[in-house]
Order: sequence, then structure tokens, then C-alpha cells
Amino acid sequence: MESTQDYMRAVGERARRASKTLASAPVARRNAALRAIAEAIAGSRDSLLAANLEDVERGSESGLDAALMDRLTLTEPGIDALLASLEQVATLPDPVGAIDDVRTMDSGIRVGTMRVPLGVIGMIYESRPNVTIEAASLCLKSGNAAILRGGSESISSNRALGRCIALGLEQVGLPQAAIQVVDRVDRAAVGELITMPEYVDIVIPRGGKGLIERIAKEARVPVLKHLDGICHVFIHADADPQKALAIAVNAKTQRYGTCNTMETLLIDAAASALLPPMAEAMANLGVELRGCTKARNVAPAITLAATEEDWQTEYLAPILSIRVVEGLEGAMAHIDQYGSGHTDSIVTDNHSIAMRFLREVDSSSVMINASTRFADGFEYGLGAEIGISTDKLHARGPVGLLGLTSCKYVVFGDGQTRQ
Amino acid sequence: MESTQDYMRAVGERARRASKTLASAPVARRNAALRAIAEAIAGSRDSLLAANLEDVERGSESGLDAALMDRLTLTEPGIDALLASLEQVATLPDPVGAIDDVRTMDSGIRVGTMRVPLGVIGMIYESRPNVTIEAASLCLKSGNAAILRGGSESISSNRALGRCIALGLEQVGLPQAAIQVVDRVDRAAVGELITMPEYVDIVIPRGGKGLIERIAKEARVPVLKHLDGICHVFIHADADPQKALAIAVNAKTQRYGTCNTMETLLIDAAASALLPPMAEAMANLGVELRGCTKARNVAPAITLAATEEDWQTEYLAPILSIRVVEGLEGAMAHIDQYGSGHTDSIVTDNHSIAMRFLREVDSSSVMINASTRFADGFEYGLGAEIGISTDKLHARGPVGLLGLTSCKYVVFGDGQTRQ
Repeated sequence: MESTQDYMRAVGERARRASKTLASAPVARRNAALRAIAEAIAGSRDSLLAANLEDVERGSESGLDAALMDRLTLTEPGIDALLASLEQVATLPDPVGAIDDVRTMDSGIRVGTMRVPLGVIGMIYESRPNVTIEAASLCLKSGNAAILRGGSESISSNRALGRCIALGLEQVGLPQAAIQVVDRVDRAAVGELITMPEYVDIVIPRGGKGLIERIAKEARVPVLKHLDGICHVFIHADADPQKALAIAVNAKTQRYGTCNTMETLLIDAAASALLPPMAEAMANLGVELRGCTKARNVAPAITLAATEEDWQTEYLAPILSIRVVEGLEGAMAHIDQYGSGHTDSIVTDNHSIAMRFLREVDSSSVMINASTRFADGFEYGLGAEIGISTDKLHARGPVGLLGLTSCKYVVFGDGQTRQ
Repeated sequence: MESTQDYMRAVGERARRASKTLASAPVARRNAALRAIAEAIAGSRDSLLAANLEDVERGSESGLDAALMDRLTLTEPGIDALLASLEQVATLPDPVGAIDDVRTMDSGIRVGTMRVPLGVIGMIYESRPNVTIEAASLCLKSGNAAILRGGSESISSNRALGRCIALGLEQVGLPQAAIQVVDRVDRAAVGELITMPEYVDIVIPRGGKGLIERIAKEARVPVLKHLDGICHVFIHADADPQKALAIAVNAKTQRYGTCNTMETLLIDAAASALLPPMAEAMANLGVELRGCTKARNVAPAITLAATEEDWQTEYLAPILSIRVVEGLEGAMAHIDQYGSGHTDSIVTDNHSIAMRFLREVDSSSVMINASTRFADGFEYGLGAEIGISTDKLHARGPVGLLGLTSCKYVVFGDGQTRQ
């Protein structure tokens, strides 16, 4: 068997070549491919489920926990959802080819920008077979070739899905190498994928913070990073009490394990009368409350003392830290020190305060009078989401199809030369 | 003396702190700072020229070549140009704070994007004192803090300019740490600057390809890369002979040392009758011509044979390689194989061919019937240029003030919670 390095480099070389065909493929053909892949999946239900069962049995033997098993398992309704998502992506507007901002310069040339695919996208993700199809569809739609490297526990499912993808691409005359599922489960495959800038234009890792940090550190290609979501809601003195309660409770309890869930509630000292009912509501919903001394003095439902570590922790669990701060400045200082630049929201009816928060808080999503849980590609109307970026360059926040493209300059002349 | 590492980390820490003040400073104050810096420079002409003379004398003793000496030297008109450029940047529209694309979602939230500064920008450049002011002004205007590390030969000039910058900032009440001139000439300072992601958001190197490649390889922060400019002009069969001649001659000879100068002329076999006058015109202007066999058979003015290496070379000199290709496909295959993704132009009157070239050539600037020499921030109407990016992510092609910003999401709610 060839070495993983040779294998990955061959995958990369084929992807690079295929990306050129894909970049100039008309949108009708890319959409046809998405639908052909859906047909291939629909026609392979039994073998897909059988392949997934192999993964599930192996996973069960090796003692994967319930959450991982849940993500690994493909069901009939799960397959229906994949088919629906392929159709949905096919109906999205084409993100590439648009020419914008064309202006005529003094020299007579007309200058604009054209949106084009990035080229080759490397995806690294956990053992979640549905991500294979999600990533494949978004890359294909945006005219990019993709190299998909899912978790080793899902290898049988991914191989089976890879065959459906290949079938669909073949059927519409696109190169099969446009979307490749990596058939190696060793870690070296990831190591290669992130160090082939000649073949890979961007790597998008999805998984735990540890994985993403390691990839970012070792990568020689740009990485779209999604690190912590330590999200804050700040209840300002001029907050509407009803809205404050509803937003705080929703931001914490609507789902606990998501990156846009509130982890720390900041409450203006001047609004501390709003804290007791809020704390009580959360405690009643089973949220463990950890507060600063002032907060605990005001709201007896806060049973535990928050430590320095609490402000730095993304719980992803029914735990909330609560701190009383002095006005907007106090809130922004806390967010600046402890926040992760993901999503932060202010509740206030004071316009000037709200606009300062919006402008000065340096996070990928900044909100006024809304739950942090809205920080999501679908809620933002992107039509799709390949990830959320906590980086500042290229794409920030939820990344949809546009995040998989960039703009080049186009110049329309009529024989102009430079003076 | 503290170690270079400690020194640079202290610089970084101060820059990060200052960047927060700067990001929320109103544009009027940023513009006032630009004008105060200009005043400080105008009031320090004698000491600036004296400091520069120190550099020039040292450079002359150590045998710097004429081109480097030329770039190092500050003159009275050079100072006037600096003052004019500061004023010009002050008059540009504010790139930050704009809120765009606000749309109301089904949930009732209104989602848009707000343009914000990147944070802290590290500049690494050669011994060109004017770049110190150029970079300072563009970073300041875009609300970014900057750490400026110019070449060691210009250290006295940069120190003197740094004092003017500090004076200007102080005068309008902005932190002096907003723009810092690195006062260490050892290489370790660069090594630190590119490995402090906690303090530096992006590094922009300006200099030779070797320097930029080394920085990109060692950097732990994103690097805005500007590598080769191996630019092509393709004369298609349907080219207007007059325009073809004018564009080819201009793209090669208007200036030889710039990155957007044509290095290889591609001529359609079906248009080879246009080659002899073109070759003759260039030869008459002193350009050394190196052609493929077909080209040499057609145009006797092409005295030398082009080698494989010629297609890969950015001459930055009065040398041109010429190749006869078969139609659009032949031209695009050559550009794909040998181009550097900088700037490529087609000369043709055939609309379909032109649009295919525009779409399919994967370069930061793609042109129709215009000289490659137009690939420039000022010619594109950006009002300024901090560099040219041959990367695909974030910014591609000439980078103006917008390239020093990114967009965050902003959400306007009225108490919305997620269902």
C-alpha cells in the first residue's frame, strides 16, 4: 500500500486539477450534480444503512459514548434530511461569477470585482456522516473541489457516501476528483492535508477546541478557525425587564451544547433588581448558577460562588456564571478580558448605549435586544453554514457559501495603456 | 538592555491596548491625527533630513547599491510628498463603521454587517522611510494600531519619523502606542513580530520574494503575501492590431521593475502576423526578446531562444519571453502552468472569448483590452494601496483601506428569542 503521504498528495493533485474544471462549470451542471448525488443516495438506502451499521457496531464495541453514537448513526429520516438538504442547496442562488462595483476610472478602464471559488477546500470533521454530504454540497455549489476527512469511526459510512457522490458527479460529466472522501483513517492523513498549500487553499476543521488549535498550529495552509464560544448577555440599566428575562433565559436554556449559548450573564449594578427573578427562572429550569459576591447578595437562587476560572469557561452545559458590572464600561471591560469574540448581546432601550456596544465590542456577532442563539447561518439568512469563524480575516461569524469564495479584480478596457 | 523578545512583546502588548482606543476613535480624531503628524513633519524638516543623512552616510560606507540608496534617501520634495499623502489619506472616506446589507429575517431580527478595523497590523519593509509614513497613515485611517519594522539601514530616519508620529498622536489625544516604530534592527525583532498572534492580527511584508516566503513559512499570524508578478498579455486571433501593439508595448516597457509589468507575451498562432511589428517595436526600445521556435520563425527581431526557465521568471528588467500558443485554450493552459496569479490580460474583440478568459483565469487581476500596468490601487480607485495580495483569502490584488478592515455581524432585535 502506498504511504499516507503519497496517497494524500495524489488526492491533492487530483483535487487541484478537478478544481479548475469545477470553477468553470456552469451552475446548472453543479446543481444537476447535487440532484444526481441525491438520487444516488436515494437509490442506495439499504447499502448506506448497512455500511453505517458496520460503523455503529464497531463504535459500540469500542465503547463510544451516547452523544458520539448518536452523531454517528444514520437513520431513514436522517437520509431523508440529507436528500432535502441537497435539494435545498441546489435551489440557493449561485455564489460565483457575480461581477460587482464596476466603475469607470479617469484612465477609461472599467474596474470591478468578480466572485470566484477559492479552489480546493479541505474539511476535517468528526464521525458524523451527514457532514460528509453537507460539506460536499456546499463546496460543489460554490465551485470548489473538496477533500473530506471525517472521523475514523465513520469510515464505512463515508466510503459508501463517497461512492454516491462519485456516481452523481460522473453522471453529469464532472470529474469524480472534485469531491474526494479520504480513505485513510490514520492521523498522518490530517497532517498531510494541512501542509499541502500547493493543493489545498483552505482547511475548515470542525470539532473540539483542542483539535482546532492543533491544526491551526501545524497548518501551512489558511485555517478557518472556530474556537470558543464564551458568549455574554449584558443587561443594561435601561433594559426592558420582560425582554431582559426572556432573552437571558433563551440565550442560556434554549440549547445548552451550542457555541452561541450564553455562558456568562452580566448585569448592570443599576439593574440588579432584575436579577432575582432571572436567577430563579434559570434555577427552576435546572441551571446551576455561579455568581460574584454582589450577585449572590442580590439573588439567593445563585447558590455557588463564581471563580476566576468560571469567566473563562465555555460550559456547553446547564451552568451559568453571573457577574454584576458597573454600566456599559464594566460590561465591555469584562467581555474584552474574558470573551472569545464569538457572540455578545446587550439588552437596553438606550439607543446611544446600544450603538456603542455594537460598535465597540469586538466579536463576530454583536447584538442588541436579541438572544445570542440567533448567531447561526440559517438564522442570518445565509441559506447554509459550513462553519462559524472566530477569526477576523476573510470571514467572521457564520460562514455560508460566500465564505467559500473570494473576489478577484476584473478590468474592462478598450485598448487603454498606462501613462 | 531588555531582550529583543521582551522588547517586542511589550510593543505588542501596548499596540493591542491602543488598538481598542483607536477602534472607537471617531474619524474626525483620526483625521486630525494625520494632519497633526504632517505638521510635526513639516516642523522637523531639518532634523529629519539630518537623521536621514546619517542613514545615507552609513549606507554609502557599507556600499549599498544605487537603487537602495535612492529608496533610502529623503529629500525636500520627498518630504513634501509625504505631507501631501497624509493630507490625501485624511480626505479619503472613513472605511470603518459602515453598516450594510441589513435585512429582516422571519424571526423578526434585523441582520447586517458592520465594517471594523482588524486590530493590530505588523508591517515589515525595506529601508524606505516614506513607507513608514504611508503605512502609519493607512493603518491610522482604518482604525488599526500598527507596529512598523523598517529595514535596519533606515533606522535613524525611522526614529525621527516615529517621533513626529508620536507627537501628532499625542496632540489629538490618541495613544502614542497606536503607531510604534520598532527601535531594534536585529532580525529577532521580525521573528517575534510574526509569532505573536495574541498581539498582532496580520503581518504585511513588503520586499523581495525570499523575505516574504520566509516570513510566510515562519509566521504564526496571518500574512498578506505578495509573491511573484509573472504577468501575461495574450494576443488573441480577433485582437485589434493597433490595440494589441499598444497594450503589449505599454505592459512591457512603461516601467520595467514593477510587479504588474508583462513578463511573457502569448500570441495566438492565428494572429502571428501581428508578432513581427510588435517584436520590432520592443527591440527598438531596448528589450531583449526570447522566443519559442515558432515565434522566432515568424519574427526575426526575436534573437534568443526561450528556455523552460524563461516562462517561470519575473525578469523585472527589459527582457520579454514570447510564446506562440493555440487559441484561448493554449493561452490559459500556459498561464495556469507558469503564471503567478497576479495579473493577466487578453486582447481580443471577441466577446465570448474575452468573458471566458475573465472568468477562467485564476489571477488577482484579469483584464480585457488593457495594459497589465493598470493593476494598482490608485488606478483601481482605491485611493491608497498598502500592498498587493497574491493570496486568495481575505484580500486579492491591490489592497486599500478596506483590506485593513473586516466585517462583523450586527443584529438589531426587539426582544426576539429563538424558537
